[in-house]
Amino acid sequence: MVRARVVEPMKGEGNMASESHGIDVSFQGEHGAYSELAAQFLFGESILTKPCKTLKQVFRTVEDGSVDFGVLPAENSLEGSVNQTYDLLLQTSMKICAEVKIRVSHCLLALPGSKLGDIRAVYSHPQALAQCSVFLESLQVVGEPVYDTAGSAKLIREKNMRGSAAIASEKAAALYGLEILRRGIEDFPENLTRFLVISENEAARTGRDKTSIVFGTKHSPGSLQRALNELATRGINLTKIESRPIKGTPWEYHFFVDFEGHRTDPTCSDALEALEKSTTFLKILGSYPGASV
Amino acid sequence: MVRARVVEPMKGEGNMASESHGIDVSFQGEHGAYSELAAQFLFGESILTKPCKTLKQVFRTVEDGSVDFGVLPAENSLEGSVNQTYDLLLQTSMKICAEVKIRVSHCLLALPGSKLGDIRAVYSHPQALAQCSVFLESLQVVGEPVYDTAGSAKLIREKNMRGSAAIASEKAAALYGLEILRRGIEDFPENLTRFLVISENEAARTGRDKTSIVFGTKHSPGSLQRALNELATRGINLTKIESRPIKGTPWEYHFFVDFEGHRTDPTCSDALEALEKSTTFLKILGSYPGASV
Repeated sequence: MVRARVVEPMKGEGNMASESHGIDVSFQGEHGAYSELAAQFLFGESILTKPCKTLKQVFRTVEDGSVDFGVLPAENSLEGSVNQTYDLLLQTSMKICAEVKIRVSHCLLALPGSKLGDIRAVYSHPQALAQCSVFLESLQVVGEPVYDTAGSAKLIREKNMRGSAAIASEKAAALYGLEILRRGIEDFPENLTRFLVISENEAARTGRDKTSIVFGTKHSPGSLQRALNELATRGINLTKIESRPIKGTPWEYHFFVDFEGHRTDPTCSDALEALEKSTTFLKILGSYPGASV
Repeated sequence: MVRARVVEPMKGEGNMASESHGIDVSFQGEHGAYSELAAQFLFGESILTKPCKTLKQVFRTVEDGSVDFGVLPAENSLEGSVNQTYDLLLQTSMKICAEVKIRVSHCLLALPGSKLGDIRAVYSHPQALAQCSVFLESLQVVGEPVYDTAGSAKLIREKNMRGSAAIASEKAAALYGLEILRRGIEDFPENLTRFLVISENEAARTGRDKTSIVFGTKHSPGSLQRALNELATRGINLTKIESRPIKGTPWEYHFFVDFEGHRTDPTCSDALEALEKSTTFLKILGSYPGASV
């Protein structure tokens, strides 16, 4: 675990910042990963950040109490949901207590002295490679998948890979001593990633909240629609729906749904009670303050 | 393009088999890929199969008329939807004319004479690595992502990689001269993949059809539910819903929906007409005979 240096005033959002001294947050990837940037954006830069190799390990570190919070990439505005995060949320007893959205601007990084024309292979996380597909096509190079964006920068540095480049954050360039060959190489400038934060405890109602749930439905006509209507008829705004296969039961699904409101709001609690009856399974993943972006 | 040998009587499903002589089908991956097995299951083994490096190329080969059909992995019963297939379906003017579901049973393949204890790295497509995560964890090896399952088998053979293994089909073992160290290494035996077939022409009504559509909705409470109710109130069975982000417009979505019935059935055509009015955008991707599995 590494204590991040305090390089600027805390940018923590909402009520999290005031508690940010001495808190531990785990994330997937290496130092400089976007998940770590999201944690620092939410809690301030004085937090302790703990890199994990896998998302499963992020859940485990929160579940066994070795950190206070875990940060999970949930969804990118270009590439969509991070399936593994949803599959793991189904299994955990931890609660979603915050969300944070950050703009993801990718840089092409290489060993100092490299030129764009020298680059023959580009390493990064598959989602980052997908987000920069137009740039990679123009460069006529092969994208090589790695488990993490910052991890690809670390790899280039550690193995001294001349002729190769990484797609990662500006911060990763500084951390691993690489040169930025090109900035903003993503296909669309509106490239945002939404992260969810889990902890043992729920978040209190703020009046600008969201709730995440997951449910199953009967395999009969109209059963999903009937469930969603419990929200619609009460004027509750659904902000996201994601279906994930039920493992071992082909072509049946769990539905992950986000809606506006806190689960303790009378309308929401009423809808949840009705949903409990109209679904085969219902789990409340958490209520938390909605991010502003 | 390679003409596959006729090794057994055609197993083509439904009305496709009778037209299967001399037809060309493109797929993503190398010979021995599950997409090629799906094509042969549907059309029979006498078809011409054309391997493509990317899914985009599969679409292009159908669009430019260089093949009759393209086979696309759409969804796996453990890992969920293949996002890129959906994103490309949005853009194409080709039609979905068939679906096929096959059981995917993975083998661990290595150079002849290898032993399980020698294996230190396992190469395969990220979805196949994910489907065998329990086995890989028990083996305590690292999963290395490659663009295709059969491609990983080809890689082991071409680079003579002793100490490495591939996760691919039994057929890939035969094609690339590798030994099967272990069969059925997937986490769940109910591991099915659903493929969609695209062509220039629509499929005729058979009476056991499905229809795939994609639509957008207004960003207001209840708009998705209102759209889905056009199906529910007519007793039309929704079999799948998948949301994909609208690129460049964060947190807005296109919804891909499959339902039972042919678009020319009176109830379906009535629902589609109503959907056209209650959505901001509607595209009919195709009606096709539903697969039996």
